[in-house]
Amino acid sequence: MVERNGMSSFKLGKEPAMTEGLYSLLKRRGFFWPSYGIYGGVAGFYDLGPLGSLLCDNIETVWKNIFIVSEDYLLVDCPSIAPEIAFKSSGHLEKFSDHLTRCLNCSTAFRADHLLEGVVEIPDTLSRNELEGALRENDIECPVCGGKLGEVEEFNLMFRTTIGSGGEKTAYLRPETAQSIFMDFSLLYRTNRERMPFGVAQIGKGFRNEISPRQGILRLREFHMAEGEFFFDPAVHGFPPFERFKDTTVRAVPNNDPGSTVEVTLGKAVENGMICSEVLAHHMGITMSFALKIGIPKDRMRFRQHLASEMAHYARDCWDLEVELSSGWIEVVGIADRSAYDLNQHSKGSGEELAARRKLPEPVCQRSTQIEVDLKVLGPIFRGKTARIVKALGELDISHVKRYKEKGEPLMVELPGEGTNEVPIDAVNLVEIEERTSHEKFIPHVVEPSFGIDRLMVAVLEHAYTEMESSPLREKEEGEVGPYRVLRLDPKISPIKCGVFPLVNKDGLSDIARRIVQDLKRFGLTTYYDHSGSIGRRYARMDEIGTPFSITVDHKSIEDDSVTIRFRDTAEQIRLPVRDVPTKVLNMINGT
Amino acid sequence: MVERNGMSSFKLGKEPAMTEGLYSLLKRRGFFWPSYGIYGGVAGFYDLGPLGSLLCDNIETVWKNIFIVSEDYLLVDCPSIAPEIAFKSSGHLEKFSDHLTRCLNCSTAFRADHLLEGVVEIPDTLSRNELEGALRENDIECPVCGGKLGEVEEFNLMFRTTIGSGGEKTAYLRPETAQSIFMDFSLLYRTNRERMPFGVAQIGKGFRNEISPRQGILRLREFHMAEGEFFFDPAVHGFPPFERFKDTTVRAVPNNDPGSTVEVTLGKAVENGMICSEVLAHHMGITMSFALKIGIPKDRMRFRQHLASEMAHYARDCWDLEVELSSGWIEVVGIADRSAYDLNQHSKGSGEELAARRKLPEPVCQRSTQIEVDLKVLGPIFRGKTARIVKALGELDISHVKRYKEKGEPLMVELPGEGTNEVPIDAVNLVEIEERTSHEKFIPHVVEPSFGIDRLMVAVLEHAYTEMESSPLREKEEGEVGPYRVLRLDPKISPIKCGVFPLVNKDGLSDIARRIVQDLKRFGLTTYYDHSGSIGRRYARMDEIGTPFSITVDHKSIEDDSVTIRFRDTAEQIRLPVRDVPTKVLNMINGT
Repeated sequence: MVERNGMSSFKLGKEPAMTEGLYSLLKRRGFFWPSYGIYGGVAGFYDLGPLGSLLCDNIETVWKNIFIVSEDYLLVDCPSIAPEIAFKSSGHLEKFSDHLTRCLNCSTAFRADHLLEGVVEIPDTLSRNELEGALRENDIECPVCGGKLGEVEEFNLMFRTTIGSGGEKTAYLRPETAQSIFMDFSLLYRTNRERMPFGVAQIGKGFRNEISPRQGILRLREFHMAEGEFFFDPAVHGFPPFERFKDTTVRAVPNNDPGSTVEVTLGKAVENGMICSEVLAHHMGITMSFALKIGIPKDRMRFRQHLASEMAHYARDCWDLEVELSSGWIEVVGIADRSAYDLNQHSKGSGEELAARRKLPEPVCQRSTQIEVDLKVLGPIFRGKTARIVKALGELDISHVKRYKEKGEPLMVELPGEGTNEVPIDAVNLVEIEERTSHEKFIPHVVEPSFGIDRLMVAVLEHAYTEMESSPLREKEEGEVGPYRVLRLDPKISPIKCGVFPLVNKDGLSDIARRIVQDLKRFGLTTYYDHSGSIGRRYARMDEIGTPFSITVDHKSIEDDSVTIRFRDTAEQIRLPVRDVPTKVLNMINGT
Repeated sequence: MVERNGMSSFKLGKEPAMTEGLYSLLKRRGFFWPSYGIYGGVAGFYDLGPLGSLLCDNIETVWKNIFIVSEDYLLVDCPSIAPEIAFKSSGHLEKFSDHLTRCLNCSTAFRADHLLEGVVEIPDTLSRNELEGALRENDIECPVCGGKLGEVEEFNLMFRTTIGSGGEKTAYLRPETAQSIFMDFSLLYRTNRERMPFGVAQIGKGFRNEISPRQGILRLREFHMAEGEFFFDPAVHGFPPFERFKDTTVRAVPNNDPGSTVEVTLGKAVENGMICSEVLAHHMGITMSFALKIGIPKDRMRFRQHLASEMAHYARDCWDLEVELSSGWIEVVGIADRSAYDLNQHSKGSGEELAARRKLPEPVCQRSTQIEVDLKVLGPIFRGKTARIVKALGELDISHVKRYKEKGEPLMVELPGEGTNEVPIDAVNLVEIEERTSHEKFIPHVVEPSFGIDRLMVAVLEHAYTEMESSPLREKEEGEVGPYRVLRLDPKISPIKCGVFPLVNKDGLSDIARRIVQDLKRFGLTTYYDHSGSIGRRYARMDEIGTPFSITVDHKSIEDDSVTIRFRDTAEQIRLPVRDVPTKVLNMINGT
């Protein structure tokens, strides 16, 4: 038996790509394919077909089970479209760009740094001027037509649109899901009953108008991501839940020696300062346990620390989880300590305070600003609803009132069910008071684990894919050519859990098989009923899409209501009563 | 006990809206809130907070369990951004618009038909000219400033963007998820091993740049939808799976008598021609069973048939599932027979055939076009890979080759791993051959059930919401004001499944409680650990977010490892061993 695990790679341009056998399998069986094929396709867009969308869904379910169920992250789901101001504050409007150069002859656009790969070191860390210099010095020409290249410009990667009928309100598609979480911080903190630390997660689409996405699913213009933002008090040292991962060994590529890989426990790495905090190391631990759970082998992953030149000025530390694929090491998760940067930016941009409170060791006297209202003015205006107006005023943010006070504009106060009310600003005063307080405000720091689901899918598929020139799994078939293919996916993420086959399509066998399908469906299990072709060919169809269990109904089933269940990876078969099938399958999936 | 179920409604503009008590609860506890609040908000965008996003997720899971698992629909997941050509073919570019009129004085934009509500009958069926006439005849002025209104124009509701660095490729955000399924028809049909009928489903965001979305979550500019496209052969009469729903009674508002509601079985309605086909009626049956499963009461739903004037010319029939909310009957699902319209449109627009095959009663002689290649030309060009090129040419669509032949342009043939190859068109000929065939081609028809998930969430919440002036559920608390609130959500969709409480925060009770939390998490159950406040208040916190089960650890637990489990809707409590808790909870959720 010759077993290859995917090393006959092929490349599409410079894009890391999959092995040829796997690629053709995935397209043929409906995992994914380029979008808009009937219109010639649009680069950077992929459809997940019937099997790919289930695989994606199952990976996201594992992710939710870890982050939402186990780690108690709060899940949110916010729009993809955001107004320009949001990205002005976040910095994306100014800085979320790549360097573009266009051929003066054929007009093709290129990422300037891509043209310098292999020519200079780490070209994507160069500035616009440095790139322009390097292109000139190295006499780089248009790779398409050999023409002269134009100036290097900054090209913002966000998709632009407008909201409303006047076309006046500029908006962008989010390049990441994170920003909504920062903008909602105060609402989330309140929802969490003002407890710290806490995490917030979002799963959804991200959009980046890449300059020249090459073929393949690794660099998409619209992609699936899952992000967490873990808010914590930077003044608190240590993170007790980290105990769980202290002794977990990882392969690390630290930035003080980027050529070497070290084996180190997460605890040790924090102790010796390689990883900046227990909170960050904890999230590296969670990330690795997730990657293992979806079937990425431990010896094919490593954590690479960002070089100082790769990191944003506000980042305290940043590690990528990389997976070794047929075409090299590919980043699939980024885990960054972003300090208080994002909350500070949105706070500045909006004028609304985004802060949490911590208890002081002992109470102190503190001056603060409070709202005082003039009932003599409000009473006659609002009559019966004055009390509700006063209550609503009391809930307003002080900084918000201050701004309206400065502008001299009336406050708009919304009462649920009673619409918006205009409150004259003169009836509202801000008074400075002094009081004993046992709390102080602070801006939380954040650790952000950010997962690229499409890349994780590719990683999982490559490592699950096995080709065998001949295989004990293959029953002899006339006309069979090519290797025998098995996707050894973890049953948890397999798109289809059970194939169900009547051995022959008569004698009532298909009735029994249909009944088993119904039973399995009641437990939420995806099934594939198949009555055509030899049983060996039906097994092979399931093996190549990663279906872990195949149930066959034969003539003995009529006598004693038993069936065989065959296991994908071993071809082993056992016989069991029909009524035990769903429980057996569920237990195998859950590993119990 | 005074029990109100939500009828003290309030309205925001003309938008149907929720009851006041429910609205404030949902915002306060983090179900949802308007997006971008720190920047003043943007109309038509809502965030799902921690509880809302779990509720949404759970509703989608129920939907997937019905459509994907039980009904064997193929799930797909395609981009939100699509090139202009896609919407040119689908008709959205020309016709997906509302009628807009702008105040000549204050510039506010309005939907012309909204200004005529209550003035003329069914204003949204009027043409541009009719609307303009009706506005003039009825002296309608700007509702904001009383100014004169401008001309009525068509306003396309799609969000526009561009793909690529040149800004040259116009694209739009999908206004529905359906179009990708039509464009992918041939791939999906092949994936399904060319079997008919079959369904394809997609869950995702839809985007519509509404002219003046009023407040609330019922008309959003970005919304959650779940759509199915069920492809079938229109020449086949009857649909055996419909047997299941033949005797299902529904409340129907037929379009031949839109003032009346009739009770009718789906079988009878097909027989007497009220519903156009068994396939359509079957999908009404599935839709109702879904709505019941997520907790919408049967006596608050009805199916309303579209009037002839509401239906597109190609639609054979269309029914909306409407739910009675505090503000009236609201459409939550549309189920339409769209005939072969969409496949025909994309087939015309792309030049690629989108068809299925049916077996003929007996074989016939048929002329067809096939590809013939000139190896004398190809051999010297492609050498070692000639065979692979010929194979790839054979897999091309005939209509595709024909177009290139007519244009006289070379064919681009992609070989996996070997890039794109240019094949001179003269080396490829199309020959007419005659052969016996047992199949013929046809364009499948489609029935489309389209679900608005946000609206379904609102419907579910309104019907689950109960206010009680006094309640046996409420334990006496000092300072409690207002009604006692319970969300009687079906446990399947409740965001949090279990509250877990140590009675006091000492004596080791919290250790036991933490252990129970861990146990529940292992089964994928969302939990809320709470040790603060009286036990009555902790129950109340769970009741108002719809948590069905509360588990309390008390001093007896230390002695015999037992706990109490309290049921939300009855306040009944039973005692059971700690080890039985997860199974008990799972069984209650699954109704077993």
